[in-house]
Amino acid sequence: MVVGLESVHKLHPVAGISLSATSAGIYNVKRDDLALICFSKQATVSAVFTKNAFAAAPVVVARQNLASGVNHQYCLINAGNANAGMGDKGIQDTLDTCSKLAKLANCPADSIIPFSTGVIGMDFPVEKINSSIPRLLASLHGEKWGECAKAIMTTDTVSKGISRQIALNGKTVTVTGIAKGSGMIRPDMATMLAFIGTDAVVDKNLLDNILLESVNNTFNRICVDGDMSTNDACILIATGESGHARISNPQDDNYTSFMHVIEEVCEFLAKAIIRDGEGATKFVSINVSGGNSKQECLDVAYTIARSPLVKTAFFASDPNWGRILAAIGYAGLEKLDISGVNIYINELCIVRDGSRAGEYTEQTGIQAMTGEDITLNIELRRGAFEDTVWTCDLSHEYVRINAEYRS
Amino acid sequence: MVVGLESVHKLHPVAGISLSATSAGIYNVKRDDLALICFSKQATVSAVFTKNAFAAAPVVVARQNLASGVNHQYCLINAGNANAGMGDKGIQDTLDTCSKLAKLANCPADSIIPFSTGVIGMDFPVEKINSSIPRLLASLHGEKWGECAKAIMTTDTVSKGISRQIALNGKTVTVTGIAKGSGMIRPDMATMLAFIGTDAVVDKNLLDNILLESVNNTFNRICVDGDMSTNDACILIATGESGHARISNPQDDNYTSFMHVIEEVCEFLAKAIIRDGEGATKFVSINVSGGNSKQECLDVAYTIARSPLVKTAFFASDPNWGRILAAIGYAGLEKLDISGVNIYINELCIVRDGSRAGEYTEQTGIQAMTGEDITLNIELRRGAFEDTVWTCDLSHEYVRINAEYRS
Repeated sequence: MVVGLESVHKLHPVAGISLSATSAGIYNVKRDDLALICFSKQATVSAVFTKNAFAAAPVVVARQNLASGVNHQYCLINAGNANAGMGDKGIQDTLDTCSKLAKLANCPADSIIPFSTGVIGMDFPVEKINSSIPRLLASLHGEKWGECAKAIMTTDTVSKGISRQIALNGKTVTVTGIAKGSGMIRPDMATMLAFIGTDAVVDKNLLDNILLESVNNTFNRICVDGDMSTNDACILIATGESGHARISNPQDDNYTSFMHVIEEVCEFLAKAIIRDGEGATKFVSINVSGGNSKQECLDVAYTIARSPLVKTAFFASDPNWGRILAAIGYAGLEKLDISGVNIYINELCIVRDGSRAGEYTEQTGIQAMTGEDITLNIELRRGAFEDTVWTCDLSHEYVRINAEYRS
Repeated sequence: MVVGLESVHKLHPVAGISLSATSAGIYNVKRDDLALICFSKQATVSAVFTKNAFAAAPVVVARQNLASGVNHQYCLINAGNANAGMGDKGIQDTLDTCSKLAKLANCPADSIIPFSTGVIGMDFPVEKINSSIPRLLASLHGEKWGECAKAIMTTDTVSKGISRQIALNGKTVTVTGIAKGSGMIRPDMATMLAFIGTDAVVDKNLLDNILLESVNNTFNRICVDGDMSTNDACILIATGESGHARISNPQDDNYTSFMHVIEEVCEFLAKAIIRDGEGATKFVSINVSGGNSKQECLDVAYTIARSPLVKTAFFASDPNWGRILAAIGYAGLEKLDISGVNIYINELCIVRDGSRAGEYTEQTGIQAMTGEDITLNIELRRGAFEDTVWTCDLSHEYVRINAEYRS
């Protein structure tokens, strides 16, 4: 099930980036499961990784290689095996695949950034990957963002991607992003990988800021099940080939325009992950306003977003708003005056001043809950901050997918 | 589904306590849904309530009445309607039922402690309750703990109760407890009500300590779905009618013996709630040792206990231990050295020194996951503390129950 989203078709190529995908046979079924993104040596690269203490081997190696100071040239990505929980052997396996690619592509091994997604704790299929690298190298092409988006899917039901173009100093700048992710999704990234390419010309420290801020406002605002993956990563590659005047000052208008387009791309991809959340039948925006701080708003929003009882009520289109109210009540807000709390489903006020709204009826409640896209507005009325989190419902399908994922 | 638990049958009466149950017609189906516990004026009463900011009307009134200084004589309990989220009207409704009982029983209204459990946000059925109170008063009897245990059930599939007897100074002291709870269960109580009666003779401040400590070690160590209810309460009534020398000194051996039996009763009831957890097919004990503090052990245990991915893996009897490892990794422990972490399912070592154990095979893993009672042992090997949390799996049935609960 997927809520208001279709597989990506046409994505704009990005000058300086070519891609390829192939089947390495990591999955038992025939499908592409290995992808390569190649970019010019001059490219600037920013990345954000999972905060999970059990970071997977590719995350460890990618962090090391990004810190190595060499110019990076390749992202090597596989689905079907996370290479996580495998200790030193896992690290060595990832290094082996990087070495193989380096040798064939005639570049330093630490110019390669590895990514893996899939099941944790299984032996990493080094041979299958290594023997597929020549095919990847032989088929690189700028038009293959869509193929890559497909090859990195795990429990995703649709591939996810978006392109945007803006003009900077009269030059057209392209931003194209792809992502995968469906379950094990929570704030602080998710079981997700996202690769965003652009031909913009941007200083490294500004690119880092832009990615961090964008991830924080988008990928870190989504929640499927509250589980945090060992493999999450989001990478932004700026090849600099569009030729506009370099963005090197955050006061620059171009900085703001570019930042907005990156955030727009991230937001689309983050929401796409929720729309394709495991078993999702509803896309729910939870907006909390009137908090004493942004964190307070997020605490309330996440408590609701993570509540299995609220999520099953959404699945049932059941306006069982008592569960929402209970979740607000245990979100841990200090001295919460419940008589200040209003709750709306879309436009419908269900709770006013902390108790059931006079005009609320079961029938209008059911009506409001019936749509696929639902906005929950929580007014705390004790401060000036607000924030939003995106989530989905909890369905039979979620349980089926996660109980049967490995069989 | 229920894991290794049967409905309670025979419970020992407690001197000074009589009970009754009836159908007030709160549910559409014919069943008892209203109960009364009557105890002697001389009884000492301790209670622990939900920390939810949206505490239900009966919780607000019960707290007030317990603080009123009068001698308490009745617990009035209904299932099928939580009287939560109803504002001042809800409070008034609860007060109305207390007044009715007080008038008929010829006692002060604040000598009554009210409890409600069921759906949140529905009008409270005051008339149905009030017109049933005469029947309750007319049928009070010391042998009716079992009937009460049944009457307070909501999504429970079995009634829950236990009796224990110990000798204190040559006198037999009885402790009988009943509880309800199945979903919306998490630390800091749960959607649960528990009523424990004893004829022990105990000072009020010691009784308070004993209940608080016992609840903390038992009801606050369980997790079904992580949702916290607006109505949770646990009450301990000591009638003092067994006639042993009063317990008024925590150094007293009798204090320790009595404390142990209360904790034993609470632990049985807490585990019973998990064994009857909504949709539960497994009972899982999560024991975390080697932490730098008890809180750290609990953080890890609860992160695992709340993980929908871990819980669906338990449901599938799938040794997808990578999900356990990922949960440990995002539990928020500072400077966790993952190479110190060992994980065991029952006796089987699955992760040693932070990565898959050499002797682990998929087959032995499946075997370990197949039982109904599973113990997960996590060794952090960085400190001297340990703690345990009890939880259950996440099944199709959980989703069905919670998506269909109100229909």
